[in-house]
Amino acid sequence: MLEELKEKVFRANLQLVEYGLVVLTWGNVSGIDREKGLFVIKPSGVPYSTMTADDMVVMDLDGNKVEGRLNPSSDTPTHLELYRNFKDIGGIVHTHSSWACSWAQAGRDIPAYGTTHADFANGAVPCARGLTEAEVKGEYELNTGKVIVEEFAKRGIKPNECPAVLVHRHGPFTWGKDPFKAVENALILEEVAKMAVRTESVAFADESSNIGIEQYLLDKHYQRKHGKNAYYGQK
Amino acid sequence: MLEELKEKVFRANLQLVEYGLVVLTWGNVSGIDREKGLFVIKPSGVPYSTMTADDMVVMDLDGNKVEGRLNPSSDTPTHLELYRNFKDIGGIVHTHSSWACSWAQAGRDIPAYGTTHADFANGAVPCARGLTEAEVKGEYELNTGKVIVEEFAKRGIKPNECPAVLVHRHGPFTWGKDPFKAVENALILEEVAKMAVRTESVAFADESSNIGIEQYLLDKHYQRKHGKNAYYGQK
Amino acid sequence: MLEELKEKVFRANLQLVEYGLVVLTWGNVSGIDREKGLFVIKPSGVPYSTMTADDMVVMDLDGNKVEGRLNPSSDTPTHLELYRNFKDIGGIVHTHSSWACSWAQAGRDIPAYGTTHADFANGAVPCARGLTEAEVKGEYELNTGKVIVEEFAKRGIKPNECPAVLVHRHGPFTWGKDPFKAVENALILEEVAKMAVRTESVAFADESSNIGIEQYLLDKHYQRKHGKNAYYGQK
Amino acid sequence: MLEELKEKVFRANLQLVEYGLVVLTWGNVSGIDREKGLFVIKPSGVPYSTMTADDMVVMDLDGNKVEGRLNPSSDTPTHLELYRNFKDIGGIVHTHSSWACSWAQAGRDIPAYGTTHADFANGAVPCARGLTEAEVKGEYELNTGKVIVEEFAKRGIKPNECPAVLVHRHGPFTWGKDPFKAVENALILEEVAKMAVRTESVAFADESSNIGIEQYLLDKHYQRKHGKNAYYGQK
Repeated sequence: MLEELKEKVFRANLQLVEYGLVVLTWGNVSGIDREKGLFVIKPSGVPYSTMTADDMVVMDLDGNKVEGRLNPSSDTPTHLELYRNFKDIGGIVHTHSSWACSWAQAGRDIPAYGTTHADFANGAVPCARGLTEAEVKGEYELNTGKVIVEEFAKRGIKPNECPAVLVHRHGPFTWGKDPFKAVENALILEEVAKMAVRTESVAFADESSNIGIEQYLLDKHYQRKHGKNAYYGQK
Repeated sequence: MLEELKEKVFRANLQLVEYGLVVLTWGNVSGIDREKGLFVIKPSGVPYSTMTADDMVVMDLDGNKVEGRLNPSSDTPTHLELYRNFKDIGGIVHTHSSWACSWAQAGRDIPAYGTTHADFANGAVPCARGLTEAEVKGEYELNTGKVIVEEFAKRGIKPNECPAVLVHRHGPFTWGKDPFKAVENALILEEVAKMAVRTESVAFADESSNIGIEQYLLDKHYQRKHGKNAYYGQK
Repeated sequence: MLEELKEKVFRANLQLVEYGLVVLTWGNVSGIDREKGLFVIKPSGVPYSTMTADDMVVMDLDGNKVEGRLNPSSDTPTHLELYRNFKDIGGIVHTHSSWACSWAQAGRDIPAYGTTHADFANGAVPCARGLTEAEVKGEYELNTGKVIVEEFAKRGIKPNECPAVLVHRHGPFTWGKDPFKAVENALILEEVAKMAVRTESVAFADESSNIGIEQYLLDKHYQRKHGKNAYYGQK
Repeated sequence: MLEELKEKVFRANLQLVEYGLVVLTWGNVSGIDREKGLFVIKPSGVPYSTMTADDMVVMDLDGNKVEGRLNPSSDTPTHLELYRNFKDIGGIVHTHSSWACSWAQAGRDIPAYGTTHADFANGAVPCARGLTEAEVKGEYELNTGKVIVEEFAKRGIKPNECPAVLVHRHGPFTWGKDPFKAVENALILEEVAKMAVRTESVAFADESSNIGIEQYLLDKHYQRKHGKNAYYGQK
């Protein structure tokens, strides 16, 4: 069942290791079959080195396990909530990558400081509000998803214009049209997060400097890669 | 004698190299056979590249060498003291990993800044008090162990709820149910130590931000992984 | 057509990956045949792992594609403008390498802090002025090249005495007598940019320290490697 | 002639690459045969990837080339001056390793912040005074050696108790009983330099913390590894 998608999700999970975005079993990738209304996700706490495509778990959009011997990732309800609300996305990634987590733990948005960021997202990468005590003590992982969706709605950010979010005190979720694109976005987010820390370090060492990309430059880069008249790449 | 444990301790020592937690001969892993009351430890100053399982040294809990051609790690009395006092642990690791050492050298606890930390320890990772001049000039390595045990007792921290400590001006010790789990904890500690430095860097660059994980979120993450009703992983 | 140059440009592009200067498809190398007035450049958005020498695109100095199935790098007009104005250079590299980008995003020149820098460039590596809104909305990539050329002219810097520039809010361009030397300069720039951040960090932690290489020491190192009587290497 | 020493020096040079202490051709290792009064050094500006043991250059202690097709490292007179004055050393290394260079560029000694440092050197690693304009314009590389020797004499530091120095605005030189030990010391210096930067970062973020290893702890660690009654390792 969904053998091709399982294989994709499995390989996308391994990419997290290749890209240095996870240590041990931290992190998970899922991918969805929109027609069937089913998604495939990494099992919880299984080492990447022994994991097989067959270990992937199939879930429906009500949160029921449809197939699989193993427990799905403990973050499954967060993936579920994102798939239900962000209708265009086909893959989701969660990691504890160090630089992105540092922004999340500090509770700060990652500001758009340059064109590397603008090639990726149409503005700051938001850090969602922290969950309340009740939300944490209740359906924690589901509420994590709800808070992400709420944050994007409140700020008027379209999920396809910013394929990443920081969960407060926790770490990043990224998404894309398929699991591989979601992993790519996790990699880019980490690069952007790292570069932003260094940019502040360089700028704050010289009080005559200033940071923050100009809106027209952000628009130019975002549009040349993602806009209607995009001319980056081969399409 | 204890061939299986020697093999485990040997392989766990090599993992320190694979994980980038040691350079040269810095670092050592030991593992204990509680029934026999004997533990196995890396020899002192032997390169990882030429070391064999047979080079491991067997010690009893009075600090006598029971088997082995080589001198045991100079830190052996510290391991000994920890095995005598932390009754549930099965393996111990000492490294000079860079980020954890930086906290130790600064004499600071690693605060719990996020869920990566909360998945690992039920509160800050303590930096033990410095040894007095008399303690350093006396049985130094044994006293290092005593100070660790004293610190955990004084603060009321249970060794199984925080599998790591920083020795003042020195570096980390970690432990676990076996040598491999102790190495895994050394790796996690280094990640957590690194992320905490970066979190402070991000937070202190913006005075509107604040850090420190909320107690209910720490509890949630610690308990979902280590508590009675833990639901992370496959168990 | 230009098979040898295509092979060189192709291999120089792969060196960016080997040296860790690019992730994904970020970055491009070109090389010029001055006699024929043609240059060869990487195609836009093609993964390094599947790219072949045959995918390279041949351009003339009016910006026309002379050969190639694929679109050239979106930064091609910047390369073009540099080849037209910096008459002695034979290869150009653009990357988003993290340390150099951080200086670019902060809008700061990289000051000459030591001999590693002086072995590379005869003074600070300039960060060019930001493009105006009109320049960004117009022929953006061409204007990027014009602003670089303007900056070097305004400051009286000779391109062969400083083989690198930072584009404001964006990242570095480097050049050399051929594509491989341009890549080497991209690598050196990244090392120099990293070392400069760390130098400020070390110096600012102790108010009795000061930074900035003495002019006579800069001259000595620059001249012993690049001057008329250079005595570094085997020439 | 000196084939065995040439082979050692050659292999020690390659270790610089393996340990990540050099990029491109930055760095050089030499080794001396005290009986014959000859030393062997890396040629200038030759890539590590194509270099052979036969490319090593043999020099006498008056600075004459005794054997070799290639020019010796441009830093040869510095090595020479160190061999003439530090009578017990058998190998010397110079690198531009990033963390050590950052201290050198900032003109700061590396303070002894912990036991990793104390296992290596019996006090701070000194940054020598800057060369005067006359010293730079004169026999620059020879004067670099003279300033190092002067600094150790002035401060009363014995070369065998601190196997490293920082040359102001430039970078580190390390030494040891043979070329391999000198490389090992270059690696340790880089680790110590990195850890010291991070220690300051951690300590300065919390004003209640303090840094600087206690003298009795420094003595303990230095003596247990290098003293008369050393008990680290297998000797």
